[in-house]
Amino acid sequence: MHIGFIGLGKMGFNLVKNLMDHGHTVVGYDINETLVAEVRTEGAQGVNSLEDLYKNLPEKRVLWLMIPAGPLVDNVIEQLLAFMQPGDVVIDGGNSHYKDSIRRHTYLKEKGIGFLDCGTSGGISGALSGACTMVGGDPDVIEPLNGVFQDISVKDGYLYTGAAGSGHFTKMVHNGIEYGMMQSIAEGFEVLQKSQFDLDFEAVAKMWNHGSVIRSWLMELTEDAFSKDAKLESIKGKMFSSGEGKWTLETALDLGVPTPVIALSLIMRYRSLQDDTFTGKVVAALRNEFGGHAVEKK
Amino acid sequence: MHIGFIGLGKMGFNLVKNLMDHGHTVVGYDINETLVAEVRTEGAQGVNSLEDLYKNLPEKRVLWLMIPAGPLVDNVIEQLLAFMQPGDVVIDGGNSHYKDSIRRHTYLKEKGIGFLDCGTSGGISGALSGACTMVGGDPDVIEPLNGVFQDISVKDGYLYTGAAGSGHFTKMVHNGIEYGMMQSIAEGFEVLQKSQFDLDFEAVAKMWNHGSVIRSWLMELTEDAFSKDAKLESIKGKMFSSGEGKWTLETALDLGVPTPVIALSLIMRYRSLQDDTFTGKVVAALRNEFGGHAVEKK
Repeated sequence: MHIGFIGLGKMGFNLVKNLMDHGHTVVGYDINETLVAEVRTEGAQGVNSLEDLYKNLPEKRVLWLMIPAGPLVDNVIEQLLAFMQPGDVVIDGGNSHYKDSIRRHTYLKEKGIGFLDCGTSGGISGALSGACTMVGGDPDVIEPLNGVFQDISVKDGYLYTGAAGSGHFTKMVHNGIEYGMMQSIAEGFEVLQKSQFDLDFEAVAKMWNHGSVIRSWLMELTEDAFSKDAKLESIKGKMFSSGEGKWTLETALDLGVPTPVIALSLIMRYRSLQDDTFTGKVVAALRNEFGGHAVEKK
Repeated sequence: MHIGFIGLGKMGFNLVKNLMDHGHTVVGYDINETLVAEVRTEGAQGVNSLEDLYKNLPEKRVLWLMIPAGPLVDNVIEQLLAFMQPGDVVIDGGNSHYKDSIRRHTYLKEKGIGFLDCGTSGGISGALSGACTMVGGDPDVIEPLNGVFQDISVKDGYLYTGAAGSGHFTKMVHNGIEYGMMQSIAEGFEVLQKSQFDLDFEAVAKMWNHGSVIRSWLMELTEDAFSKDAKLESIKGKMFSSGEGKWTLETALDLGVPTPVIALSLIMRYRSLQDDTFTGKVVAALRNEFGGHAVEKK
């Protein structure tokens, strides 16, 4: 199949290679011309405008977006609407909010254009050699593309999740679970690290990956990380995030679902970005006020 | 090697079979005579007293305990002390508190008896066909037994963790991580379940097990559970626990390690065992007091 691929970052670039490995023909575009040049060396047709991308695709075009979530997705869709015709399909493979995807699906459907929201998991290595994809959208739009999603995914790693938005919704929840699992693993290792025992964290993670209840890909990545830096002394414990944990918590709150572990995983990420906290100052001041407890001065 | 095995419950019975599969000779004892009879049909020598167990082992006896944590372990050790001689080794394969294991190690060492604390993970299937074991104790005591632990574990699934207590400590933290991972997965599925989408939970878990970041043995068990009961309608959401999550949290608090996710995983288990809460009554009463907000009457 011919696919127009928009966004050749780490995930996109590897997905393009993955698509070509499965015999698909890719026209690739990125605002960064270096990436376009690189994708050419991989055997894709690299173009420097959305118009060129569009013109180089056969009818019933498939336009795969792998770009940062948010207004940029709307912006690119608006630019594409200058050319797009009924029967074309836009796939959003990024981490868009599922409510945005539902809105975009409705908006494009009114113009006869298909829209699929594709949550993509498995990291960069998965993008290259077998991703995990969860895709929402209309059945008649997904039908001719099932094979493509199967191609880029590991066996049984692709699921058509149903109505528009359900792909990104499922991916959002996946990431919420991921936050909680990562925080659990991390808290456990901090208990090991602060303990009286002299444990080899890489060896512990490796042992836990062989037969234990908590064996998992994340524990394998933990093992890898400790193999490179036995006590992680070269990095800071700043935990950035890119929105999906927050969205999962917001959704849980809207739905009235108590999700304390996902909530605290997110909150601990925010806390990690603060060197000191105003909360801490207030509590320290109050302890001093009522009990004369010592305050650490700046 | 000849091994005296004490405790033929689900874990113990399968470990005995696992040991025999690897050519070891087992003398098995349980307070439940039915289990002793059953272990005989598996080819082990079943005995009906600790004395018989002890008498049927060659010198430098290895006595493997797989019994409920707590005073019972001390009780059995006291009974064994009527016969035990210097050079014998007690292995505690159960989920004892690591501080108890340190105490027992010291107590037995004074009598010339070796003590190893062996955390055993991997569930019943692991016990039978390849467990994950983390073992603490003195190097000279572990040395002749390394091969036995390797035999019952999956490849790379056995680790000598160091000083006495470190095996049970590592297993305790493993279980703390397990609590957090399970709660994360469960919260995610409740968000899916309460959502506007009609998702097939088994299909989602299966897809997540193929290439996603959260692929894990626990997610495979989640898939299995949904395959048997698509919406888990046949069971209640009561989350029992057997101590190791609580110990992990207590240890974290003693060490000053913030472990909110492990803490909340435990707290949500406790909450699940309450049909109604006194906390809820107090908050409802207060909302009524200050704002006239409705209270649901009993």
